[in-house]
Amino acid sequence: MAKPKKTPRPKAETPKGFRDYFGTDVAERSAMLQTIAGVYHRYGFDALESSAVETVEALGKFLPDVDRPNEGVFAWQEGDEDGKSDWLALRYDLTAPLARVYAQHQNDLPKPYRRYAMGPVWRNEKPGPGRFRQFYQCDADTVGTASHAADAEICAMLADTLEAVGIPRGDYVVRVNSRKVLNGILGGIRSDAARKNAPISSFNDALEMGVSDLGFVSPDAILRTIDKFDKVGADGIIELLTSGRKDQSGAFIEGVGLSVSDAERVVKFMMSRGENNQATLDSLRELFELLDNVPDDVHQYSEGLEGVSELAEISKLLEAQGYGPDRIIIDPSVVRGLGYYTGPVFEAELTFDIIDEKGRKRQFGSVAGGGRYDDLVKRFTGQSVPATGVSIGVDRLLAALREKGRTKGKAQGPVVVTVMDRDRMADYQSMVADLRNAGIRAEVYLGNPKNFGNQLKYADKRGSPVAIIQGGDEKDREVVQIKDLILGAQIAENATLEEWKERPSQYEVPLSDMVAKVQAILDSQSG
Amino acid sequence: MAKPKKTPRPKAETPKGFRDYFGTDVAERSAMLQTIAGVYHRYGFDALESSAVETVEALGKFLPDVDRPNEGVFAWQEGDEDGKSDWLALRYDLTAPLARVYAQHQNDLPKPYRRYAMGPVWRNEKPGPGRFRQFYQCDADTVGTASHAADAEICAMLADTLEAVGIPRGDYVVRVNSRKVLNGILGGIRSDAARKNAPISSFNDALEMGVSDLGFVSPDAILRTIDKFDKVGADGIIELLTSGRKDQSGAFIEGVGLSVSDAERVVKFMMSRGENNQATLDSLRELFELLDNVPDDVHQYSEGLEGVSELAEISKLLEAQGYGPDRIIIDPSVVRGLGYYTGPVFEAELTFDIIDEKGRKRQFGSVAGGGRYDDLVKRFTGQSVPATGVSIGVDRLLAALREKGRTKGKAQGPVVVTVMDRDRMADYQSMVADLRNAGIRAEVYLGNPKNFGNQLKYADKRGSPVAIIQGGDEKDREVVQIKDLILGAQIAENATLEEWKERPSQYEVPLSDMVAKVQAILDSQSG
Repeated sequence: MAKPKKTPRPKAETPKGFRDYFGTDVAERSAMLQTIAGVYHRYGFDALESSAVETVEALGKFLPDVDRPNEGVFAWQEGDEDGKSDWLALRYDLTAPLARVYAQHQNDLPKPYRRYAMGPVWRNEKPGPGRFRQFYQCDADTVGTASHAADAEICAMLADTLEAVGIPRGDYVVRVNSRKVLNGILGGIRSDAARKNAPISSFNDALEMGVSDLGFVSPDAILRTIDKFDKVGADGIIELLTSGRKDQSGAFIEGVGLSVSDAERVVKFMMSRGENNQATLDSLRELFELLDNVPDDVHQYSEGLEGVSELAEISKLLEAQGYGPDRIIIDPSVVRGLGYYTGPVFEAELTFDIIDEKGRKRQFGSVAGGGRYDDLVKRFTGQSVPATGVSIGVDRLLAALREKGRTKGKAQGPVVVTVMDRDRMADYQSMVADLRNAGIRAEVYLGNPKNFGNQLKYADKRGSPVAIIQGGDEKDREVVQIKDLILGAQIAENATLEEWKERPSQYEVPLSDMVAKVQAILDSQSG
Repeated sequence: MAKPKKTPRPKAETPKGFRDYFGTDVAERSAMLQTIAGVYHRYGFDALESSAVETVEALGKFLPDVDRPNEGVFAWQEGDEDGKSDWLALRYDLTAPLARVYAQHQNDLPKPYRRYAMGPVWRNEKPGPGRFRQFYQCDADTVGTASHAADAEICAMLADTLEAVGIPRGDYVVRVNSRKVLNGILGGIRSDAARKNAPISSFNDALEMGVSDLGFVSPDAILRTIDKFDKVGADGIIELLTSGRKDQSGAFIEGVGLSVSDAERVVKFMMSRGENNQATLDSLRELFELLDNVPDDVHQYSEGLEGVSELAEISKLLEAQGYGPDRIIIDPSVVRGLGYYTGPVFEAELTFDIIDEKGRKRQFGSVAGGGRYDDLVKRFTGQSVPATGVSIGVDRLLAALREKGRTKGKAQGPVVVTVMDRDRMADYQSMVADLRNAGIRAEVYLGNPKNFGNQLKYADKRGSPVAIIQGGDEKDREVVQIKDLILGAQIAENATLEEWKERPSQYEVPLSDMVAKVQAILDSQSG
C-alpha cells in the first residue's frame, strides 16, 4: 500500500536576521531599561509607547539615511473589506513615531513635551554577524522648545543615566558639538563649479535639495567622511576629503573632491578642541575670523558664530549644574552622520579599553547619540516644531556593562527539589511552596524521576545553587538532605578523596529547618 | 504666477485598530508585568523573548481558532537579493513562537523547560471599541513533561500572581476542569446520522478532522456554545445545543442540533460542581457510571474517567501546597474554547462586582486561562511533546486593578521650577539638579517663560505637586518661594477669603533649605 502523502514539516527557524533572547539576556536588558526609565522619570520625562505598526505615509517611507529612500522597512499592503488598502510598516526607529504622535495629540500634550520610549524597532536590511533586523532602542526627547536648556538637560541626563546603569565616572564622556558650527565651516566650501553656478545659501539647504548634481560636493558625503575621524585620523580624513585613500586591505576609496586647503580647514575645525570648554570655544571663534570668504558667505559666517554661542550657553548651563569636563565636553570632532540635525549634536562615548574581535586594544566607543532636529513634525502640520533628543544603543550599552562586569552574568538558578518517589509528589510540592513563600526561587523536578543522576544533571544545567533530597528513609525520620551544589562543584574539582568522603557539602536537617538551612547556604554562596 | 504643486501632508494617525499609550498607562503596565515576572521567576521559570517576526511556515499560518485558517495575521512576502522570498508575519500569540523555539533549541534547553514571555502580539482582525490589533500577552508554560504536577504548579502560580499584583484572596478563583472529562461526556453524543455512519473514536479525533460534514455535530460548535454558560445559564445552553434560541434583541440563534437528552447530559455535567473538590469528583464519576452507552463508547468512558483521575491528582497536589477552595477549585463548567487543549484546562476569574457599560452589575470575569496541549511541537519534530501553560490577559487584569484602586492612578508629576528671568536659566538648572540629586522628580519650565500664568497652567497639566519660584528679589535675598500646588488647589476650592489671603500653601525659605522643604511638602501630600 502506498503511504499517504505527508505535508513536509515546517522548519523550526527564526527568519534570517532575527533571534531569540533567553533567560539572563532578557532579565539583564529589562533591568537596565528599568534603571534608565527611572532616571528619565526623575528628569520629568513621561513614558510613551506608540504602536509598532505605522502607516507608511506617517513613517515617511524612508530611513533617516537620505541616500536610501523607500528601502529598509518591513512593509505590507493591507486589504480591508471595502477593497481599500493602506500600506503599513513596522517602525524603524522611535523618532518618526514621536513626530506622528506629537502631531496627532498635540492638544492633549504638555508643551514642551518630554517623553521617553523604549522598545524594539525593525530594519529590513541585510543581516550580518551581530547585526540583527530587530533590536531595541531607548530614546528621550523634548519636543516644543527651542531653549538650549533642553539640549543641556539631555546631556546631563545622559551622563546620569550612564552612571546609574553602572558606568563609573571617568569611563565615559558626553561630547557636544553644534551642527551650526559645522555648517559655518562647510558652507564656505564649494567646488569650483559650484562657486560659479550654485547660489546656495546654506549647507542645510543643500542637504534638503540633494545637490550633488548641482556641482556642489555632496554634503552628505562630507558628513559621512568626517564621521570616520576616530578611525582614520586627520591625515586619513584629508585624503578622503580630497583625492581618495587606500584602505588597509589595499582597496582604493574615492575622495570627495574638496581642495586641499578646504579639507585642511575642516580638519583644523575638528581638531580645535582645547584644554577646556572655554579654550575650545575661543579657538572656534578664531576659526571663523580666519575665514577668507566672509564677504561672500555672510550667512555661513553668522550661522557658525551662532553655533559657537549655543555651545557657550550649553557649557554654561552644564557647569551651573555641576557637570564639568570629566563628564561632558564641547568637542568639534563630533559629527553624527544624520542630515536632519539642525543644532547641537551629542554623543556618549565609553573611554575604557577593550580587546576587539581581532585581538587589538581599542576604546569601547559610542553608546548613545542625538541632537536637535527642528523639522520632523513639520511634515504633518506645516509648522516647524523645535525638538531635541537622544537615543541609547541598548545592545551596545549592555555589552559594555558585561565588559565591565557590571551585570550579574549568569543568573542564579532555582533550588531544585528532587523526586525520589513519584507517589509523594504532593510532599515535594509542599516543600517547594515553603521555599517560595520564604522568597526563595525553587522548583520541583518535573521530568522523569527514574534516573536520579538525570535530576542532578538537570539541576546543573539550571545553574541550581541547592538540591533537596528526601527518600523514603528520610521521610520516615522527617528529615531532608540538602546539597550545596556550588560548594560541591568546588570540592569535586579540588578535594582529596578524604575530604570528598566527608561530604561537607551535604547536610541532613529536620524538615522543619529546611528553609532556614537553604537560606543560610544561599547567603554563604553570595557572601 | 501659479503656485508650485505641494505634496499633500501625511495624516498624523495610527493605523486603524492601533493606539498609543502614554505616561501612567505605560508605567502601570510595566510595573504589573515586573511583579508578574518576579512570581514566575520565583517558580523557576526563565524569561524568553522571541522575535516579533516569524516565518509564516513556522507560525502555521493560522490562529488557534480553527474556523479561520489563513486569516488574522499581518503577513508580507520578503524579497531578497537572489529573488527568493519567504513569507514573514507578526506573531499572533506567544505559544506558536514557543513551539518553534523549543523545536529549534531543544538540545540547549533544560527538560522540562519552564519559560515565561511577555510582549505585544498582533492580530489582523476587524478592530472595534476596546478591541485593538496590537495588545500584550503574558504567558508561562512548562514544556516537556506530562506530569500533572506541572498543571497544578501553573494553577498555584496563577493564584500567587493575582495576589502579588493586588487582587486580594476572595476576589478571585482559579477554576480547573479537564478536557478529557468533557471528551468523555461529549464523545457519547452523536447525531443520528453520525451514529450510523461515522466510527469516530474520540472527540479530539473529530476535532482534528473537522468533521461537521460527516454528520457528526461540529465539536467546535459545541465547545463554543457551552463556553457561553456564564452568560445564558443552563436553560439557554440547552436551547442553544438543541433547536436554537432567541437572544435579548429578538434575533434567533440557530441551535447545534443535539437531542434534548444529550443537551441535558452536557448541562448536568457542567453543573456537577459540588460543595468541595471531593464532592465534585464524586459526582463526575457518577455521571460516567450513568452513561447508557458504555458498551458502544468504551473509549470515551475510559477517557472521561482518566480525566476525573487527573483532576483528583491536581486537587491533591494543590491541597498539599495549601491551595484550598478559597483559591483554586475543580469546576466542570470551565470550557476554554480552543480545540487544541488535551487535558486539564484552567481559568482565573475575578469574582467582585463591577458596573458594566450598560449600568448593570456583573462579575468582572475571566482574566487568564490556559491548559495542557500536547501536540504543538509535533508539527516541527514529528514527536509529541507534552506542554501546559497559562496566558494572562494583560489589559483585562490592568483594568481590574484600576477597578479595585490597586494602581496609583494618576502618577505624580514633577516638581516644576519656574523661570522668572530667562537669563538666569543656569540658576534654575542648578536648583533642579539639587532636587533630582535628592531623588525628587523635577524639571525646569522650558516653554516660553514670558507669561507666568502659562507656567502654572503647565504645572497643572503635568500634575505637579510643587512649583518653585525665584524672581530677582528672591535671588537678591537668596530665598525661594515654594508653592504647594495640591494644598493650593484644595484651598482654592474650599477656603474663605481670609484663609486665602494668608496663603498657607506658599512658603518662602532660604535657597539652602529648598530641597528639605520640598521633601517635607511631598511627604505631607502622600501622608
